[in-house]
Amino acid sequence: MSQSIAAHPDRLFPADPGVRKIARSLYSRVESLPILSPHGHVDAAVIEKNVPFPDPAALLVTPDHYVTRVMHAAGVSLDRLGMGGSPADSRQIWREFCAAWPLFEGTASGYWIRQEFEHVFGVREEPGQDTADRIFDAVSAKLAEPGFRPRELFKEFNIEVLATTDDPLDSLESHAALAADPAFASRVVPTFRPDAYLNIGHPQWQSNVERLLGSTRSGTPGYKGYIAALQERRHHFLDHGAVSADHGVRTPATVRLDEADAARLFERARAGTASAEDRDVFEAHMLYQMARMSVEDGLVMTIHPGSFRNHHAPTFEAFGADSGHDIPVAVNYTEAIRPLLQDFGTAKDFHLVLFTLDETVFSRELAPLAGFYPSVYIGAPWWFLDAPDAMLRFRAAVTETAGFSRTSGFIDDTRAFCSIPARHDTSRRIESAFLARLVAEHRISEDRAHEVIVDVVDSSPRRVFKL
Amino acid sequence: MSQSIAAHPDRLFPADPGVRKIARSLYSRVESLPILSPHGHVDAAVIEKNVPFPDPAALLVTPDHYVTRVMHAAGVSLDRLGMGGSPADSRQIWREFCAAWPLFEGTASGYWIRQEFEHVFGVREEPGQDTADRIFDAVSAKLAEPGFRPRELFKEFNIEVLATTDDPLDSLESHAALAADPAFASRVVPTFRPDAYLNIGHPQWQSNVERLLGSTRSGTPGYKGYIAALQERRHHFLDHGAVSADHGVRTPATVRLDEADAARLFERARAGTASAEDRDVFEAHMLYQMARMSVEDGLVMTIHPGSFRNHHAPTFEAFGADSGHDIPVAVNYTEAIRPLLQDFGTAKDFHLVLFTLDETVFSRELAPLAGFYPSVYIGAPWWFLDAPDAMLRFRAAVTETAGFSRTSGFIDDTRAFCSIPARHDTSRRIESAFLARLVAEHRISEDRAHEVIVDVVDSSPRRVFKL
Amino acid sequence: MSQSIAAHPDRLFPADPGVRKIARSLYSRVESLPILSPHGHVDAAVIEKNVPFPDPAALLVTPDHYVTRVMHAAGVSLDRLGMGGSPADSRQIWREFCAAWPLFEGTASGYWIRQEFEHVFGVREEPGQDTADRIFDAVSAKLAEPGFRPRELFKEFNIEVLATTDDPLDSLESHAALAADPAFASRVVPTFRPDAYLNIGHPQWQSNVERLLGSTRSGTPGYKGYIAALQERRHHFLDHGAVSADHGVRTPATVRLDEADAARLFERARAGTASAEDRDVFEAHMLYQMARMSVEDGLVMTIHPGSFRNHHAPTFEAFGADSGHDIPVAVNYTEAIRPLLQDFGTAKDFHLVLFTLDETVFSRELAPLAGFYPSVYIGAPWWFLDAPDAMLRFRAAVTETAGFSRTSGFIDDTRAFCSIPARHDTSRRIESAFLARLVAEHRISEDRAHEVIVDVVDSSPRRVFKL
Repeated sequence: MSQSIAAHPDRLFPADPGVRKIARSLYSRVESLPILSPHGHVDAAVIEKNVPFPDPAALLVTPDHYVTRVMHAAGVSLDRLGMGGSPADSRQIWREFCAAWPLFEGTASGYWIRQEFEHVFGVREEPGQDTADRIFDAVSAKLAEPGFRPRELFKEFNIEVLATTDDPLDSLESHAALAADPAFASRVVPTFRPDAYLNIGHPQWQSNVERLLGSTRSGTPGYKGYIAALQERRHHFLDHGAVSADHGVRTPATVRLDEADAARLFERARAGTASAEDRDVFEAHMLYQMARMSVEDGLVMTIHPGSFRNHHAPTFEAFGADSGHDIPVAVNYTEAIRPLLQDFGTAKDFHLVLFTLDETVFSRELAPLAGFYPSVYIGAPWWFLDAPDAMLRFRAAVTETAGFSRTSGFIDDTRAFCSIPARHDTSRRIESAFLARLVAEHRISEDRAHEVIVDVVDSSPRRVFKL
Repeated sequence: MSQSIAAHPDRLFPADPGVRKIARSLYSRVESLPILSPHGHVDAAVIEKNVPFPDPAALLVTPDHYVTRVMHAAGVSLDRLGMGGSPADSRQIWREFCAAWPLFEGTASGYWIRQEFEHVFGVREEPGQDTADRIFDAVSAKLAEPGFRPRELFKEFNIEVLATTDDPLDSLESHAALAADPAFASRVVPTFRPDAYLNIGHPQWQSNVERLLGSTRSGTPGYKGYIAALQERRHHFLDHGAVSADHGVRTPATVRLDEADAARLFERARAGTASAEDRDVFEAHMLYQMARMSVEDGLVMTIHPGSFRNHHAPTFEAFGADSGHDIPVAVNYTEAIRPLLQDFGTAKDFHLVLFTLDETVFSRELAPLAGFYPSVYIGAPWWFLDAPDAMLRFRAAVTETAGFSRTSGFIDDTRAFCSIPARHDTSRRIESAFLARLVAEHRISEDRAHEVIVDVVDSSPRRVFKL
Repeated sequence: MSQSIAAHPDRLFPADPGVRKIARSLYSRVESLPILSPHGHVDAAVIEKNVPFPDPAALLVTPDHYVTRVMHAAGVSLDRLGMGGSPADSRQIWREFCAAWPLFEGTASGYWIRQEFEHVFGVREEPGQDTADRIFDAVSAKLAEPGFRPRELFKEFNIEVLATTDDPLDSLESHAALAADPAFASRVVPTFRPDAYLNIGHPQWQSNVERLLGSTRSGTPGYKGYIAALQERRHHFLDHGAVSADHGVRTPATVRLDEADAARLFERARAGTASAEDRDVFEAHMLYQMARMSVEDGLVMTIHPGSFRNHHAPTFEAFGADSGHDIPVAVNYTEAIRPLLQDFGTAKDFHLVLFTLDETVFSRELAPLAGFYPSVYIGAPWWFLDAPDAMLRFRAAVTETAGFSRTSGFIDDTRAFCSIPARHDTSRRIESAFLARLVAEHRISEDRAHEVIVDVVDSSPRRVFKL
């Protein structure tokens, strides 16, 4: 009984038979549309070189901080999961994971993994202590099949566009190779992600800046050179097909400094004498500068604020970043983003996609902002909010003010390649469920809902991300 | 198909057939009750002089910032919509609007307008590029009919009381004329809205204060005269039937200054030397003073905080206030309003209605406050929250703590006269939908729900606004 | 008709017939499980001495600030309800309450009381002016029955564990007597609640500290003695069966001071010269110290932050604390609790249960924290949020990130002994309703849901509170 839910054609649809029927019909319109993934964390080299996937644990457990965090909370220490380079037996990790499987009931991760088992790996058994080895062997066998390499799955998953997230100094050679390969029909595009070059607080900021300054053809020194180098690298990304630049910041604060002031802060930071306030101001200034550059070069600007990174220092020291303890904080967009919007909110062809982990800003700030500024789009529910109920809350919170045209379309934001179809399918089902309720309540006609579902799933990401 | 939804008798009711049946029955109790509109922005002179409505664009598009903002977000510049006095052809604006119509799907505005078309103008076609001219002509023809003047619609809409929002120095002669007119059976009452006389930050504050001081019979100078003049003007409003005073503030902060300190701040502000902190303190003090006056003169006090007005300076400069870019910010009531409630929270017959654009305060602050203080009532969902799903969230958030008796009843808050029936009908349907769920879940008996729906729709606004 | 809802077997279940059927089946698994109440405010002496309950008003109205606050909001002054020791006739209070009964429609209190009437007192009439006396007599008669004493009801309610909340210097003799009584088969355990000894701002802090220092065997003076005395009293509680220590704080701020700094603040506070900042820092330091002690002695640590206590000073002066005007404020956990979690977040067997009155932290902070830190559990919806719709919002907000295993299980937090079954039953019904929806949407299998409902109702509180 338990296994059948992943295969149920009505999964995630509302229970009411009348509404469900409408949801089914809407979903049938978008079920098979190609996947557009304009923001994510898959490694382009893995696609380019068509590297076979590793064993089940190294594919599905160790690198997925959505998974390891839940096990950690239950008392499984991260080194037992092979994290931080700790030596660990894959089968043993897999057994830990299968034993922990009941913890994932009701979670988004549990849902995605169950879908992956069913639809990607053809595994129909429930994970558990007694099935762990059998599932390990079945998935391992699948992973060894020639049809199970990244490029083959890319095609099977029907991915039309996949954006990666890249260091500004990345050569992007894998992207170039894929673009030049006539055998590869899809698009893998880089994303410019300069946090570690903008945030003075970043541990590598100083060395990053020196490398950045050393990378330019012109060799302009100082702040001027820093700005020029960033612009140059953005053009490098544009030349390799990039459509967007992404910014992970503590707050979406923005400020416009004059050049002399900015240069002064910059030199203070290089000399290691910047105060905490200097850092905040410089970071806000550089977020403003990134908007200015986006206005000029056309890269869509996305902002992901409000995550307190590496909350547990001992875990960070032992296992590094992205080890499961980034914890959200409250966010204020209205006042913080204002300096940027004053100058660029109505700039031609500027697209600014605002994400949040703080649901309170959906109805209070993001819908009103996106409902006025032509540049602003509301980012899809992100991270902890990328889950069925949270998605429904998102739509209910923003639609009545901003309609359907001002949202970004779904973003999977994942490094777990094999989970991509499950994530997009979840989103399509939930969008259908939301619209079906509106149809049933006579708030939108069924004809229009059929147009909106296609717009939301397919046209929105193309339009917003200039695909 | 698309057109029929506006006429569907079950619109906005829950989809479940059992719950829907209960909702229908509850709604039938209140469907035809007279409209009580204790807070809104219709111009009394328009009713008094029975001014014919202008053309469709000037009636339904240009003055409605709910509508123009969405079009602006989609790239339509505001001067193309005739805003800021820009010359524009009505039919051309109308075509822009009809072309933009799909943007309004799922929005509250889209819902109201569709209802207006169906039930006020008898237009059954969906707006669109191909129907724009036909609808323009049909609405124009309707507007030219003698039965389509403000006073005739007032009667047809079954409006019993309509409150306007007025400048403290307004003569209120239209209100007086209407009250004296035996042919006009309803009540049009003014609302005292003194923001521009209280907030030092207001661009006209200084000149307003001089005019205010000049208006008094006594001629008392300085702060004492300022306070006396405000009291005098409130009495002028009371004499013209006013039931409430409304306050639009950035925060609901209140503070009680002694008279000497208040006078010092007042004089500093008149001299143009007030600091930002002075301004905040004086504004908080005057909010406290307004409560004191309400305790004395009986005007219901309503507070609308938390809107960052005129967020986009370039748009404000070109098109003035209310041009669609007021953006909410987080609000704190518990600590901010405490000084006021310490002194007046249990004052006899004092009614204080607290509104919010920040939904988080519904369950956290407003329901607990209104669930203790006899003076406090929870304002109906306002502005961006005046929409079906937001209304349901509101009821779910406040009822379990504060019950049904502590909410204000519906407020349409609109300058769009022809949308008034649609707005009130929306509220009545949603209240019925909410109660129907409680009945279906055996949380309230159906008998009681029939009493509550009447209380919420009719008795609450009468009681809370002393109508 | 109205009376039947309290007896309806499907009360609180979703209306959809399919979902309701699933909810019924889930509920049937947990309906009769024993009550575990790991946090509440019943007086142990009442159970020990088996004191007969007083009259209906003194049992159900006067001491219940959920009830008196709603009546106060409606204009009933608290002295008319016998509060603050005011002389009042019980039957008269009861009439006031019955007349006010319609105010409770839709509230959690109204729901509990109706259940109590139906299932504890066998009263099937709706309270009202005409039934007040009859119900008063019926309840009075019931209260006079020998089977209606605390110990008999304890058995009838099937309470396995009941935690009280106690002053650190309490002798706990009632707990000892109950534990030693072979005729009493259940457990009544104390809870260590040291707020009045930790928060310098507490009016009795200084005298409490002197009494605390005087209580120790060692007689160590100063800060060292203070810390030692707290540890000693905790051991006294542990010796009497305590499983947890509870902390009511304005904010969950924590800080780790070195001993010398802490001692300096302590002495300043004893001397009455502590500044407001001193107080905040010392309070944050002591919350950290409480965690340290919990790590050492194994008492589960629970934190209840974010209530602005005694909001209305005049009511506090006349009627004391807990008179219905504690009002929530926004809470920030992520940054505030970090110093504590840095050091103890992964400490072996440390259990930290975080409650909130600010719903916004459920998805934003608590689920992410509990989804990583082995020590952190999400407290059940508390106080104003302990209500059907709020509980559903809670589950929807936390489950997708943290699953079902990281929540505390239900806590009734009540001093109203006779309401305990209704409160637990409400929780069990709502948990069933939530899970039923997930089953109907194919997000969890029905088999698994049957395991989860038992885990949530029974195993979670045992596990989290080390029962």
